[in-house]
Amino acid sequence: MPSEFNTTRSVEFSDTDMAGIVHFSRFFVFMEAAEHAFLRSLGTSVAGTWEGRRVGWPRVGASCDYLNPARFEDVLDVRLKVIRKGTRSMTYGFEFQRGDVLIATGRLSTVFCECAPGQPFRAIPIPDFIADRILECPEEEGEDDAEG
Amino acid sequence: MPSEFNTTRSVEFSDTDMAGIVHFSRFFVFMEAAEHAFLRSLGTSVAGTWEGRRVGWPRVGASCDYLNPARFEDVLDVRLKVIRKGTRSMTYGFEFQRGDVLIATGRLSTVFCECAPGQPFRAIPIPDFIADRILECPEEEGEDDAEG
Amino acid sequence: MPSEFNTTRSVEFSDTDMAGIVHFSRFFVFMEAAEHAFLRSLGTSVAGTWEGRRVGWPRVGASCDYLNPARFEDVLDVRLKVIRKGTRSMTYGFEFQRGDVLIATGRLSTVFCECAPGQPFRAIPIPDFIADRILECPEEEGEDDAEG
Amino acid sequence: MPSEFNTTRSVEFSDTDMAGIVHFSRFFVFMEAAEHAFLRSLGTSVAGTWEGRRVGWPRVGASCDYLNPARFEDVLDVRLKVIRKGTRSMTYGFEFQRGDVLIATGRLSTVFCECAPGQPFRAIPIPDFIADRILECPEEEGEDDAEG
Repeated sequence: MPSEFNTTRSVEFSDTDMAGIVHFSRFFVFMEAAEHAFLRSLGTSVAGTWEGRRVGWPRVGASCDYLNPARFEDVLDVRLKVIRKGTRSMTYGFEFQRGDVLIATGRLSTVFCECAPGQPFRAIPIPDFIADRILECPEEEGEDDAEG
Repeated sequence: MPSEFNTTRSVEFSDTDMAGIVHFSRFFVFMEAAEHAFLRSLGTSVAGTWEGRRVGWPRVGASCDYLNPARFEDVLDVRLKVIRKGTRSMTYGFEFQRGDVLIATGRLSTVFCECAPGQPFRAIPIPDFIADRILECPEEEGEDDAEG
Repeated sequence: MPSEFNTTRSVEFSDTDMAGIVHFSRFFVFMEAAEHAFLRSLGTSVAGTWEGRRVGWPRVGASCDYLNPARFEDVLDVRLKVIRKGTRSMTYGFEFQRGDVLIATGRLSTVFCECAPGQPFRAIPIPDFIADRILECPEEEGEDDAEG
Repeated sequence: MPSEFNTTRSVEFSDTDMAGIVHFSRFFVFMEAAEHAFLRSLGTSVAGTWEGRRVGWPRVGASCDYLNPARFEDVLDVRLKVIRKGTRSMTYGFEFQRGDVLIATGRLSTVFCECAPGQPFRAIPIPDFIADRILECPEEEGEDDAEG
């Protein structure tokens, strides 16, 4: 039952900006891609149907701390951790590394929702077939403070 | 009855890449934004409903020629011209200038479609209330050759 | 001496995703654009030279909380506040509204740096000609808690 | 001596727009990523140094024709062909397929340039160590007409 998921991300030219480094907004795209790969690894998708209803995981919060710049053609190790599994929500923590160098840490909070066309998103409980496959792995106090 | 539309575009930091210039893919976003502003100026939208049906303008072709680089905080003059108005399709030409300097020229071909959810897009005739407001302004031979 | 800056942002088609709403990563681009407009309003730029040195404002942290979705052709009111002015760093708070509806709140922390080509960024004190024009406007306790 | 290069591209959520399909501008990013992977496969990079000079491949033209929409989590086969190898320039053709379905065809023209900081880009001959590894594979007449 996974509480972590590891993947890599190759920095593309279009990820960079005139400062010669990865644009800070791209890390949120990188986090999302890792989240979606994690959901696929569980046999589900961020955009699917469940019991005939369109469901998804709209974001309610996202943050990133930038420690070292990443550059074109860097291959980043991306580590996702489930730091909170709620009844209807999920919070992921992320670490981006290039070799031994910590590039950035991030966090993404999502809510499981029914996404009926033309209707507001409506939070609903995460189905067991997903929830049962995910193990929460809360951060330790020190970590929490550091990222606070 | 307009065949041209002029607007401006300010280059943002996130439009740039590590070469210090606007990333070439961004000009397609700039063209689209000008097209949508043109459609709004006619009282319509690229994503709307018409006679109860969801309609839109999917792209079938796009091209751009890059003559001079654009940079952060440049304010570009964007000139849109309707170079072909078909029964179901529209082709726009674009010129991007910074002062006297021609930065890029582009072209965008779109088709008017019914976009019913879960169905393939289906080309349908452009409604009169839109078509009647647009004047085609074909390119002259020389121009056509130059842009080839 | 400003501690706030207000602007607007029109949502473009390319800001949206298949959920029909603005992609969450775009709010970071919107924040940055407002920050840069704020710096321009002070007579400076995010990417400039100062005493012959290339200087800039690399990001060290960014976060956003999403309260309501924003959609294509929405015109968002963007309010920037300087919530912390340090010797070498600046933290901005942002609010995005559509009419009375609060769409998102965000935060961006930047550090004033010398950005010599081929060198690591090096934090240096914010020059007086910039710092003197900015008034810090700390958040009240309640606000701080709410944004956590 | 390669004249073709094949890779794949997985469509990410952030590649999509509110029409539920890949935004047309993203295909230019996909082409560029394939071009850069091709250059890496030759032992070079799009952004490097050569004989102590910073060199690169600025784009002078790009086009794409869209035949069928691509969607989230599609895995596209990307086929790059060198359709023209000039002394200082290169033109690539691209095909994007999902299984048997042709999604899009594209073209990208680039020029080998010295990119000295603060100087305009200056076209220079492609070094032999690159040119010698690339075989031109011109399009046949029929293809050329079709892509027009």
